[in-house]
Amino acid sequence: MFTTLEHARAGGRFPLADVIGHIPWNDQGLVPAVAVQHDTGEVLMLAWMNRAALDETLHTRRTCYWSRSRQGLWRKGLTSGSVQHVKEVRLDCDGDALLLLVDQVAGACHTGRRSCFYNVIDGDEVVVRGNPAVSVP
Amino acid sequence: MFTTLEHARAGGRFPLADVIGHIPWNDQGLVPAVAVQHDTGEVLMLAWMNRAALDETLHTRRTCYWSRSRQGLWRKGLTSGSVQHVKEVRLDCDGDALLLLVDQVAGACHTGRRSCFYNVIDGDEVVVRGNPAVSVP
Repeated sequence: MFTTLEHARAGGRFPLADVIGHIPWNDQGLVPAVAVQHDTGEVLMLAWMNRAALDETLHTRRTCYWSRSRQGLWRKGLTSGSVQHVKEVRLDCDGDALLLLVDQVAGACHTGRRSCFYNVIDGDEVVVRGNPAVSVP
Repeated sequence: MFTTLEHARAGGRFPLADVIGHIPWNDQGLVPAVAVQHDTGEVLMLAWMNRAALDETLHTRRTCYWSRSRQGLWRKGLTSGSVQHVKEVRLDCDGDALLLLVDQVAGACHTGRRSCFYNVIDGDEVVVRGNPAVSVP
């Protein structure tokens, strides 16, 4: 299926169920999903989805991930309010990564920072960008 | 270490060696790395790095990934010319994902497309964005 998509011309359309049916989930049934703020391009976070999380995300238009630490569906923002409204979902060329264009309410990160990618390598140091905005357990 | 970074204020600096020493590599010694075009924010691809690939990337300022299919270091663009000049590398809050801000020469994707994320979900279909620009094996 993904080989067919590789060769497809722009605008070619294929049934979603066929494509999802060919996602090469890893041995835990997961693929990484990158969430990006749809209108600024800011990379917010990387999390994981299984088939159920992807299906729920597509149906509810809010991101639902698979929490590897809790081993359960993680409805992002359900308790914190920092939900992600889904604008678009894309798959990469070999189908083992997802890109989510979202509208992020408040901060994506559990530290309250807008993005989880706040640790910036600068020479032989790491510089932290942004203050933690919530009390981190 | 990453707990310390969670609580750090903006501008806090920490030794890179300490931070890299605490990356929670997966059971294959890898973490996912997302490459983004530094000046447009376009998400180009998701690949994987082990410690050696990250070290080489930081030293050469060109991306070096770990190829899971070939089980070896993958010096991106070495044969194709589609190298990625590294502008900045970031780690996420728990250190198990990397963000690479790069200047991508030509296309990131093996199909010749600029980005690997060309399969866009549209309702119950997937629409292909962009034509393949090279002959895909």
